[in-house]
Amino acid sequence: MLQDQLQNKINSKTKPLGSLGLLEDIALQVGLIQQTLDPFISRPSILVFAADHGIAQTGLVNPYPQSVTAQMVLNFLNGGAAINVFTQMHQLQLIVVDAGVNADMSHLVHPNFIHAKQGMGTANYLNEPAMTSEQINSCIQKGKELVIKVAEGGCNCIGFGEMGIGNTSSAALIMHSITGNPIQECVGRGTGANDVQLMTKIDTLEKVATIHQLHSLGNKPFALLSAVGGFEIAMMVGAFLAAATQRMVIVVDGFIATAALLVAVQIDSTIINNCIFAHSSNEQGHAKMLQHLKAKPLLNLGLRLGEGTGAALAIPLIESAVAILNQMASFEQAGVSTASE
Amino acid sequence: MLQDQLQNKINSKTKPLGSLGLLEDIALQVGLIQQTLDPFISRPSILVFAADHGIAQTGLVNPYPQSVTAQMVLNFLNGGAAINVFTQMHQLQLIVVDAGVNADMSHLVHPNFIHAKQGMGTANYLNEPAMTSEQINSCIQKGKELVIKVAEGGCNCIGFGEMGIGNTSSAALIMHSITGNPIQECVGRGTGANDVQLMTKIDTLEKVATIHQLHSLGNKPFALLSAVGGFEIAMMVGAFLAAATQRMVIVVDGFIATAALLVAVQIDSTIINNCIFAHSSNEQGHAKMLQHLKAKPLLNLGLRLGEGTGAALAIPLIESAVAILNQMASFEQAGVSTASE
Repeated sequence: MLQDQLQNKINSKTKPLGSLGLLEDIALQVGLIQQTLDPFISRPSILVFAADHGIAQTGLVNPYPQSVTAQMVLNFLNGGAAINVFTQMHQLQLIVVDAGVNADMSHLVHPNFIHAKQGMGTANYLNEPAMTSEQINSCIQKGKELVIKVAEGGCNCIGFGEMGIGNTSSAALIMHSITGNPIQECVGRGTGANDVQLMTKIDTLEKVATIHQLHSLGNKPFALLSAVGGFEIAMMVGAFLAAATQRMVIVVDGFIATAALLVAVQIDSTIINNCIFAHSSNEQGHAKMLQHLKAKPLLNLGLRLGEGTGAALAIPLIESAVAILNQMASFEQAGVSTASE
Repeated sequence: MLQDQLQNKINSKTKPLGSLGLLEDIALQVGLIQQTLDPFISRPSILVFAADHGIAQTGLVNPYPQSVTAQMVLNFLNGGAAINVFTQMHQLQLIVVDAGVNADMSHLVHPNFIHAKQGMGTANYLNEPAMTSEQINSCIQKGKELVIKVAEGGCNCIGFGEMGIGNTSSAALIMHSITGNPIQECVGRGTGANDVQLMTKIDTLEKVATIHQLHSLGNKPFALLSAVGGFEIAMMVGAFLAAATQRMVIVVDGFIATAALLVAVQIDSTIINNCIFAHSSNEQGHAKMLQHLKAKPLLNLGLRLGEGTGAALAIPLIESAVAILNQMASFEQAGVSTASE
């Protein structure tokens, strides 16, 4: 069995058994994903999906104006955001996708920018479903296509980030529906709501949960996306599905990305085998999401920024883990004595 | 005040306030260490101090034979150990120091190997003090010299690792003496003691604590090192002291390195300002040591290998944190709107 062979190879390395902790689990997992005793990480990449949310225009769920989504996309393309800094530092490819920003971006030309706009933001789910079935199918299809193209470019390790004012609300509603946690346990401060704003956010999302009968959509991923999803979230769902099909290592970022994963797992539960959880976010619902998925995150730095920043910071650890298998000497090779029993 | 200016600079970056969590604290700390609004990390380095312990020859505290210390030094020089893999991957300078390995290494020539042998291992502290005063002074002096030389080479961020069969025992005894925790809370499985070996280790170290009256040495760092220290630990004490004087960022590794830090802090408590704690180790006493120092470690990966591996894995996070200050755009620069209150 490959699993036993991988474990034996890890155990043969010049270190006490198990002394590299979680990194040994990661090395084993990547070997299983790639079905080889000699796994490797190639062209690790972060795809950031940006989109707007109709609910954000009400001002009920977010302290920042909706226009920040488009402003931040420009910031990504100009290299000024946190995700730029981290991807540059760790030599990761960064691709930014307009999944549905509420601004005309058709004039923007940049080698790492992809036009995939599905609309000028979703509809306001206080009044109507956020997305049509056609939009969902198109998002999922586009997410798959993008990942396949990145895989064809030689990437075998991918993380998904997002930008979208209001998207912690969408993620909280998805979490509520799929995990069954009450709304107030799923809703956090997002980009930084104060106490009053947080109360308003909770009240608003409780209304939304009732309007769309979210308790009944926990195993209906397409209906759930239609009711309260977002273009970037639906595109990430497609991206997760394709990344697993492509046998990629999937680095799961924070609250929004994990919400998209919850949906993707409803469609194909086996993709979890490809997932490495980058971090436990400071957004309050995230720890419970991770528990729901029985995930052991690599980092716990109190991050709550999104953009794929947690994934970008975790990739050097994953590369280190894989290098244990490839580059460390065995006891035999190094002539080092083993332990007595 | 520089602290306020640094905080303002961090807050001006295009991200919600505080959303980069611990990394923001690290950015602030490095700015204060370097006394600048524009800190940078230059030539980050790991120094691994190797030495043997007389107690290890009794077989009472360690499952691996003492000869493994020398074998692992050769493994470091041949590039086969975990610390080689991680330092190479993250472009860190690695320097290996023979602080007192019980083997003749005088013939070894390697650009990154330093001969600083203080003896063929310490004396067995079951029978006599581990080290003489002259040895302690010489270790501390040598540790300082080595760090000053590395600083002169352009390094401003340094982590200390160690290799020495039996040195978790020395670290546990130091912890017991300084923190006041009972021996059984300070002693862990080290390189992998089984239940019977662990009981023997605890019994043995309780005897040692009584023989040397360790409860009375908690604020006598030189007497404590003399009683139960190690050459690599004493050299690390000097290294910590000099690194702070040189205004370096000090990346504190696991159980043994933190024990050395406990001693160094007794000599100069201000060095703690320069310390970033890389990780919480799986060696059982380490978490309590960190609590004693009120430290917030960056990683918690279940590592218990030593060699400076935790420090090496944390340095990319520290570099990322510093890059927030240097490379991210401000709201003003990027034309991004800020939050409403």
